Amino acid sequence: MTLPLDALKGLADCLPVGACLSDSETLDRYGRSTAFWSTRPLAVVLPTRREEVQKIVQVANQHGLALYPVSQGKNWGYGDACAPSDHQVIVDLSRMNRILEINRTLGYAVIEAGVTQGQLSKVLAEQKTGLWLDATGAGTSASILGNTVERGFGHTRYGDHFATTCGMEIVLPTGQILETGFGHYPAAKARHCFPYGVGPAFDGLFCQSNYGIITRIAIWLMPQPEAFCAFFFRNSKDDSLPYLVDQLRRLRMQGILTSSVHIANDLRAFSSRAEYPWKECGNETRLSTALRQQLRKKHFVGAWNGTGALYGTRRTVRAAFSEVKKALRGNLVLGFNDRSLGVAEKVVGGLTALGINASAFYGLRIIRPLYGLLKGIPSDDPLKGAFWRCRKNSFINGEIPSGFNLRDSDAGVVWISPVVPATGENAVEVERLIAGTFEKHGFDPLITFTLINERSLTGIVNMAFDRTNAEETRRAAACYDETLSGLIDAGYIPYRTGMPGFKKLHQYNSPFWELARQIKKTIDPNQVIAPGRYIPS
Amino acid sequence: MTLPLDALKGLADCLPVGACLSDSETLDRYGRSTAFWSTRPLAVVLPTRREEVQKIVQVANQHGLALYPVSQGKNWGYGDACAPSDHQVIVDLSRMNRILEINRTLGYAVIEAGVTQGQLSKVLAEQKTGLWLDATGAGTSASILGNTVERGFGHTRYGDHFATTCGMEIVLPTGQILETGFGHYPAAKARHCFPYGVGPAFDGLFCQSNYGIITRIAIWLMPQPEAFCAFFFRNSKDDSLPYLVDQLRRLRMQGILTSSVHIANDLRAFSSRAEYPWKECGNETRLSTALRQQLRKKHFVGAWNGTGALYGTRRTVRAAFSEVKKALRGNLVLGFNDRSLGVAEKVVGGLTALGINASAFYGLRIIRPLYGLLKGIPSDDPLKGAFWRCRKNSFINGEIPSGFNLRDSDAGVVWISPVVPATGENAVEVERLIAGTFEKHGFDPLITFTLINERSLTGIVNMAFDRTNAEETRRAAACYDETLSGLIDAGYIPYRTGMPGFKKLHQYNSPFWELARQIKKTIDPNQVIAPGRYIPS
Repeated sequence: MTLPLDALKGLADCLPVGACLSDSETLDRYGRSTAFWSTRPLAVVLPTRREEVQKIVQVANQHGLALYPVSQGKNWGYGDACAPSDHQVIVDLSRMNRILEINRTLGYAVIEAGVTQGQLSKVLAEQKTGLWLDATGAGTSASILGNTVERGFGHTRYGDHFATTCGMEIVLPTGQILETGFGHYPAAKARHCFPYGVGPAFDGLFCQSNYGIITRIAIWLMPQPEAFCAFFFRNSKDDSLPYLVDQLRRLRMQGILTSSVHIANDLRAFSSRAEYPWKECGNETRLSTALRQQLRKKHFVGAWNGTGALYGTRRTVRAAFSEVKKALRGNLVLGFNDRSLGVAEKVVGGLTALGINASAFYGLRIIRPLYGLLKGIPSDDPLKGAFWRCRKNSFINGEIPSGFNLRDSDAGVVWISPVVPATGENAVEVERLIAGTFEKHGFDPLITFTLINERSLTGIVNMAFDRTNAEETRRAAACYDETLSGLIDAGYIPYRTGMPGFKKLHQYNSPFWELARQIKKTIDPNQVIAPGRYIPS
Repeated sequence: MTLPLDALKGLADCLPVGACLSDSETLDRYGRSTAFWSTRPLAVVLPTRREEVQKIVQVANQHGLALYPVSQGKNWGYGDACAPSDHQVIVDLSRMNRILEINRTLGYAVIEAGVTQGQLSKVLAEQKTGLWLDATGAGTSASILGNTVERGFGHTRYGDHFATTCGMEIVLPTGQILETGFGHYPAAKARHCFPYGVGPAFDGLFCQSNYGIITRIAIWLMPQPEAFCAFFFRNSKDDSLPYLVDQLRRLRMQGILTSSVHIANDLRAFSSRAEYPWKECGNETRLSTALRQQLRKKHFVGAWNGTGALYGTRRTVRAAFSEVKKALRGNLVLGFNDRSLGVAEKVVGGLTALGINASAFYGLRIIRPLYGLLKGIPSDDPLKGAFWRCRKNSFINGEIPSGFNLRDSDAGVVWISPVVPATGENAVEVERLIAGTFEKHGFDPLITFTLINERSLTGIVNMAFDRTNAEETRRAAACYDETLSGLIDAGYIPYRTGMPGFKKLHQYNSPFWELARQIKKTIDPNQVIAPGRYIPS
């Protein structure tokens, strides 16, 4: 199937020269993904302005096209820039990358869809705004808006991205502009300060759905605190997960700890520090218990490893940190601020220069990017873990080059992301379920649990595989399928998913998805926006 | 207009005997409100179970009835239990008052629509759950669900009620049951821990709208902290508002202060402490500057008076309180916990018994109920302010009797509630706009500004009048109309409103209200749920 010429002309007429592409190289590129599935688009359009998006939507209605909006197309592990089915037109919003406002007093930024984490973070620092972003581990080139409307999360006090957005601009399937919250009142003063507006709140409706194209959002930014403490903890015991989860939930529910807290198992920690130990394991793609133990020692990694941070004044941070240490008694807990991390790095640098093996400080190399994330500084470092199962992991000791796109590498990545009540019991049940299924399919379960709010964890399981290996890719697909189904059946529904997950979400027929479909039919009768995305068609 | 007999029979058949009322005494009672408007219903139905609500909705579809759901009917100041127009059938959910679950580990309660603040607060204490509610000033008999879906707010760290709800059960206009979030997955474990679920989030859509009847919600509860400090501040200078707002916003944005903060002007503070000074002002219904100054001294009240609270451990609360005192330097700031408040009360009691006039401690009498609210203990005390303009305020020195309903008194109350960016400049602009209009109409502006989140204030203006005085009631209506219009035109849109406010919200024709209407038409084609409520019909 190719795009009819008049439709192609219609799209091209909406756009500047060169912003409507349908050459096969472009279609190939957008048709690749880091996952074990991908779809091929009919065309790719690259609007620069909202008005162009409105025109594109009108052309789509006239010609019966399906449009699939992406912000930067870096929805890695959930299908990248690929639509849920072939023959959709990718609306790539990466050229709509203006930062429209930064409000220093009220701490927010108004940004277009294509604004990346790296871009905003840089501007905030360069302009000495005194404001911090919350960044995800998806790297500097990932879109903020794209992540937010997928309900992604980061590492700081503003880790829940949907909870810190305030006002959206949406191109509806009619081409009309919807401003959510108070935004539709021309003079509204609090449009970026109070998220609900008055009357029904539409923001939640347009996330993880296909009711419109979100072209702009406002996000809240943290004021740089007077004092900051990033803390890192590890526990060498495999059975320490429930204890850690229960203690950290208590700290969060008491309001003492307000950042997201990430707890990674040893495998997840290895993956961002080292290549897969192909030699040591004799090319076996599951690591033995003995080898895992060796690697833990070598990489200064515990069975469970965590990060979190405290923000405030010197007094409040000191008081909160002593509560964290008290709650995590029996764990190694290290706290760093700019000064102490700098000193530690210098000491280790000095020892290394003297030829002294400072293995106990090995962890420092990995701490810097994590430390940055806890201050909202995005880093490409976490992407290195995507290459875990590749035979060549050329990045682990080097930098990921700017402009690099994971979909153009061998790395296979799919995320499975169940939501889990933040109790030790539930965390262990989920960990066992995942580990069992992964073992069966010959994979090592790379797991992170993130305390995303005061009461729930999001488990992030990295289904890592080598995309150049067809057999392994098939196994990864089977493992993904069984793990996700097992989790849903056990009541651990994912917070987010990619195309193969959508139909699993619809397996229970309920008024919920019926209502979602009914609304879709009403506001997008021609199904022009992302058919098949989340909402059953 | 009366209800046709077959429709009445249809409704009665859904319900236990005596739960479908259309006698004129009942209709009179439900047809009264504390506002300057009210509407008369066709009938009142009192379901006890969800299944009865489903049947009622079906009968309404068959007979073309309009249903107006109320939880306890205590939407005081916004129209009480009155529908936006005459001839609707009130669905009074007050008999659906079961507390279905209290989860101590994860800190939440699942409650039906009729559960009141007093009821849940009592059960939490009696069962020694160690969990605290967030209560509003609407008194013990107000529904929690009703307040939450109107996006009401309270005083603690969980002051933003919509932000701390997690999972709703809704009877749709078809009679089907919608479970929001993860609730529609039968086995879902995190349904009350993670609010968004997966796919579109509907919760915001069903608040301040008329798309369904919300019969059940889960709300998050605070664990009782190890340490607690309620703080009270006052500033005697009229021009101190901007300073207070800017300092408190900074504390909140830094995450040091996490409770709602309420800042009341002198008039608002008088109204909950004393009767209107009819004698002193010679029956004038605006107080002179000199009299206001006298009353400030007499009642130990500043030009601006505030409350907030800190929750944590002894160490973190102490650290945070010293930051509060530092930020509010130049203000009188008093901090209390259970022990110190008890001691202070004993001392004052002792002095009074000795005949010593402890006027400096006069404020203590008013502190106890406010102190309770900062711990989530509801109180009927704030309702006393409703009688400010009544010739007889029999409650100011006594208790409000249980079962008392404001609509059966002389008190006229309407709230005007603009949302204001939390900057001193905006707060002053709003205060002046309100004061000017109130002066013109012969009213004293009773104002509270609440820091409802890190970036915005909700102004709550008490349009208090004597409902037995027809002339004053007319003036109150005119004052309300002009104030609300003035605020909207200046960009200060209300977070919530009553019937006369709805059409002001629709004055700007925008895709927002068009979309709202389109969704209404789709999911409620017969307009059976609350026609005219928020959504233009």
